[in-house]
Amino acid sequence: MAEAMQATEHQHSYIHNNTKADYLKRLRRIEGQARGLQRMVEEEQYCIDILTQVSAMTKALQSVALGLLDEHMTHCVVDAARHGGPEAEVKIKEASEAIARLVRS
Amino acid sequence: MAEAMQATEHQHSYIHNNTKADYLKRLRRIEGQARGLQRMVEEEQYCIDILTQVSAMTKALQSVALGLLDEHMTHCVVDAARHGGPEAEVKIKEASEAIARLVRS
Amino acid sequence: MAEAMQATEHQHSYIHNNTKADYLKRLRRIEGQARGLQRMVEEEQYCIDILTQVSAMTKALQSVALGLLDEHMTHCVVDAARHGGPEAEVKIKEASEAIARLVRS
Amino acid sequence: MAEAMQATEHQHSYIHNNTKADYLKRLRRIEGQARGLQRMVEEEQYCIDILTQVSAMTKALQSVALGLLDEHMTHCVVDAARHGGPEAEVKIKEASEAIARLVRS
Repeated sequence: MAEAMQATEHQHSYIHNNTKADYLKRLRRIEGQARGLQRMVEEEQYCIDILTQVSAMTKALQSVALGLLDEHMTHCVVDAARHGGPEAEVKIKEASEAIARLVRS
Repeated sequence: MAEAMQATEHQHSYIHNNTKADYLKRLRRIEGQARGLQRMVEEEQYCIDILTQVSAMTKALQSVALGLLDEHMTHCVVDAARHGGPEAEVKIKEASEAIARLVRS
Repeated sequence: MAEAMQATEHQHSYIHNNTKADYLKRLRRIEGQARGLQRMVEEEQYCIDILTQVSAMTKALQSVALGLLDEHMTHCVVDAARHGGPEAEVKIKEASEAIARLVRS
Repeated sequence: MAEAMQATEHQHSYIHNNTKADYLKRLRRIEGQARGLQRMVEEEQYCIDILTQVSAMTKALQSVALGLLDEHMTHCVVDAARHGGPEAEVKIKEASEAIARLVRS
């Protein structure tokens, strides 16, 4: 029973309450960048300027991803390792696959 | 005067009317992904699932950027090269810098 | 004393003996790709073909990095977490910074 | 006949003689980095230090690729555009595909 709860708990996000508001703020800004890009395309602004905005938005997204990954490893991976058992291996495999997707995207 | 108009025209976006609607649709979907990420963070969904969505969104953004760059080179860079003069060199330099930002972001 | 040895040991590579030979083989192949690129430039082969080889070599390098990172997390990070103390935090911070460098390169 | 020669010539590398030596020097350094990585793995050096070297090597490779691409566009793409005909379109398509491979690798 405790085991099952532990497993369920691990599926929760490990975003701290004080950083959650920060992530939401950054994602709202990224949403605004997506709207800004639509306006630039709508107004047929210069392609190179649109591409500059796409690069800035990609960097902002990557930065959010790296922050989330760091929190995930600090909490979820470390907790699983301390808890012992095969859970840690599963968590590392999952994290490695997420990192591979980030590196290749 | 014709020269000045030419220069101004080059600052326009070279997005074709038939692809413009497509870019707007893709960017609206990307805006939706940014809202979806906020909901995931708000609901404290599992970090790895959030990261998977960030990777998908980054890939969608990159794909828009590569499409815009291709259109820009097909129209703006080729036009400048045909028009002759130092304009082509300026356009290539600009495109190269935009590519570098995409590769490094 | 055991503490000091532990700390020193953590600075060792966590590459398993059975994967070490595999990494060396992959890195020798990457070294061969670097020599192949020199030959292509020397013989003034077509730029696009050279760029295709550069992309293949970059992918091979990334793949080595992702493998090393996975082994590092499986062994070094998990060990530090189990060992307890501030060590785990240091290891996660180090790994996060390495991941950021990979994502941004 | 002139047409055929033109086509053949376009398959040549557009690396200037004064930059060719520079590319060879940079690629030799990259080959040295690949050998350095083998030594680090052989000596079981710390994983994070190996990863730092991989990131540096990836950045060096990307920088070579961006330089080659810039030369290719400055010479080959601009020449094809000036020459007229369907050649320019082929060259842009080829360059766009090479850029996509670089962005995604």
